[in-house]
Amino acid sequence: MRILILGGDGYLGWPTGMHLSAQGHEVLCVDNYLRRNLAREEDSEALFEVPNLHQRAALWQAVSGKELQVRIGDLCEWDFIAAVFQEFQPEALIHYAEQPSAPYSMKSRHAAGETLRNNLTVTFNVIQAVEAYAQGCHIIKLGTMGEYGTPNIDIEEGWLEVSHKGRQQRFLYPRQAGSLYHTTKVMDTDLLWFYVRMWGLRVTDLMQGPVYGVETHENKGHEELYPFFNYDELFGTVINRFMVQAVAGYPLTVYGKGGQTRGYLNIKDTLQCLRLSVEKPAKEGELRIFNQFVETFSVNQIAEKVQASGARLGLKVEVKHLPNPRKEMEEHYYNPVHSGLLELGLKAHPLTDSVLDEMMRLIIRYKDNINRDAIFRGVKWKK
Amino acid sequence: MRILILGGDGYLGWPTGMHLSAQGHEVLCVDNYLRRNLAREEDSEALFEVPNLHQRAALWQAVSGKELQVRIGDLCEWDFIAAVFQEFQPEALIHYAEQPSAPYSMKSRHAAGETLRNNLTVTFNVIQAVEAYAQGCHIIKLGTMGEYGTPNIDIEEGWLEVSHKGRQQRFLYPRQAGSLYHTTKVMDTDLLWFYVRMWGLRVTDLMQGPVYGVETHENKGHEELYPFFNYDELFGTVINRFMVQAVAGYPLTVYGKGGQTRGYLNIKDTLQCLRLSVEKPAKEGELRIFNQFVETFSVNQIAEKVQASGARLGLKVEVKHLPNPRKEMEEHYYNPVHSGLLELGLKAHPLTDSVLDEMMRLIIRYKDNINRDAIFRGVKWKK
Repeated sequence: MRILILGGDGYLGWPTGMHLSAQGHEVLCVDNYLRRNLAREEDSEALFEVPNLHQRAALWQAVSGKELQVRIGDLCEWDFIAAVFQEFQPEALIHYAEQPSAPYSMKSRHAAGETLRNNLTVTFNVIQAVEAYAQGCHIIKLGTMGEYGTPNIDIEEGWLEVSHKGRQQRFLYPRQAGSLYHTTKVMDTDLLWFYVRMWGLRVTDLMQGPVYGVETHENKGHEELYPFFNYDELFGTVINRFMVQAVAGYPLTVYGKGGQTRGYLNIKDTLQCLRLSVEKPAKEGELRIFNQFVETFSVNQIAEKVQASGARLGLKVEVKHLPNPRKEMEEHYYNPVHSGLLELGLKAHPLTDSVLDEMMRLIIRYKDNINRDAIFRGVKWKK
Repeated sequence: MRILILGGDGYLGWPTGMHLSAQGHEVLCVDNYLRRNLAREEDSEALFEVPNLHQRAALWQAVSGKELQVRIGDLCEWDFIAAVFQEFQPEALIHYAEQPSAPYSMKSRHAAGETLRNNLTVTFNVIQAVEAYAQGCHIIKLGTMGEYGTPNIDIEEGWLEVSHKGRQQRFLYPRQAGSLYHTTKVMDTDLLWFYVRMWGLRVTDLMQGPVYGVETHENKGHEELYPFFNYDELFGTVINRFMVQAVAGYPLTVYGKGGQTRGYLNIKDTLQCLRLSVEKPAKEGELRIFNQFVETFSVNQIAEKVQASGARLGLKVEVKHLPNPRKEMEEHYYNPVHSGLLELGLKAHPLTDSVLDEMMRLIIRYKDNINRDAIFRGVKWKK
């Protein structure tokens, strides 16, 4: 299948590109290095250097014998995205091409405005490009579990059947997100759902939880093919960040009570979910929604797991509760359904001790690269 | 009170400005003539000439003795909006500054993209400007009943209490709109609701139905103070448009079965609703939502009323059912609550025979201005 990966340079975009290429799909990775450049501007460099996308494609070809195409440009520009679609004629696309950091989106008016502009414009252009040049192309959109927030009822898989005064209606599950970044994802869904209804697009929206890990089947033993591994508050997800803090001897920074609970998954499972979504597509006129995570943990539970992994490897890891710079519930009900991807065939990798210890050993090897000053930023949700 | 009217040149913006000025408020009308210019580009001129905003302010001062300030500029530009807020220090603002046409938003990729960009950017800038320069300022945002679409359950006033598997949660009423324009209004609400929760903004969201009429208390007897009266498919609302079609001998164009039902209100009631919202503001950290309409009609019922009014004035009015160019339900359940503004003090003006006949007489006087070619555009929701 011809598969376009938008945001193909990213933490998930690049491993997805290799994974689908390894399965024999024809893959084109597109990126404008937005996240790479923002991370540099914010002094949020990854734990190890990551070659550019052309270099990575050449490295991947050397390792696998597979060609992976690359194109650099800004998907906010219509002329660029139109040319990509006209030339490549995608049968499926995976849309990761968004500013992905919640704290970045809350740090300033400028950062918030750029997040809104970039994320919505790319989603809009993707919809228009599919309609203009690739009708029937399956759009796989990365949403986030964060769109739902933390309601006091079970989080269903995308939809909610409501009974009200004796009548019934099925709605998109109501969303109220906890950051501007997450709110742009809610708006992405508004936009996609509208055009699914109007134009009969076929869309899969993957409501993903925070991802951890770095090693995948394709990059195992080839560290030059590893994705970005960020460990700072802006671009590092919490498990990855806490692991680096543990190695750096930097107390784990739990915000408030630490009861904030989310659904997590290993990067290997992200790749499985994407492949399953590609190979078993949504129907025309369908917005198919999956909640994409494997297990739920509170921040306190993650801190305990990281602490225990450190102890097994001879590190003394402290945990520090800080006043919460965010506005969020620190203790709450959380019971999200996540059966759709399991039914599609997902074989989940839980966060076991050996998974943690293997990650910890990798980070220890790169210990000298850790920039302690980059870890904590104290971005406040309300000034 | 110092009240900023964003989109102060528009069909509703200008009458609102005069109305609040007449009540003794200090009013600043801001506009970039976006809608005026779009209407010209589309050959959708109003039924009569409308002076520019500076001219209208001078005319209003001559009639009322009240000063009404004017400023022309683009609220998408941060430097402009920041200067407006810093200098005027609004205590309340009314945000009408959006591309307001559903068919325009569906006519081309360019029109859709500009609608999305303009509407979201202005709303975002308004939020940021309030936070930066006018904390505590009450934001009154024009939403639309069209955000809700036509669900099979009662439409509550902004919020929905959901019982699910034995637990309860109050959600923003789930929205699924029928045009890109209406979808940008859903996204406006997402954005406002997010920042209400994060920053404690005070917001009133007025979910307004289609408005009809032209005469208000302030412009009565002063036709030079009338607002835009558009009668084409792009910028004319359905009652106004059908009245002009009746006068022009142009059969009333009912789409499909004509059972599409919406909530309507007289422009005089829009002004009351706005004044009531200004004078009885939302609380800090509150998103207050009112469904702003007076009575519901199907398109068939409106056609019958216009036909009857024509007959009373000696006009033979035909009704023609066309294949529906839109994607919408032509027969549906529709039972929206609208008690909030009545409780606040709204004295509604229903669509009586005499209201219809008075409008019809006005249009007859301007009959020679009607451009028959402008009426029907056939904008299709799906190409």
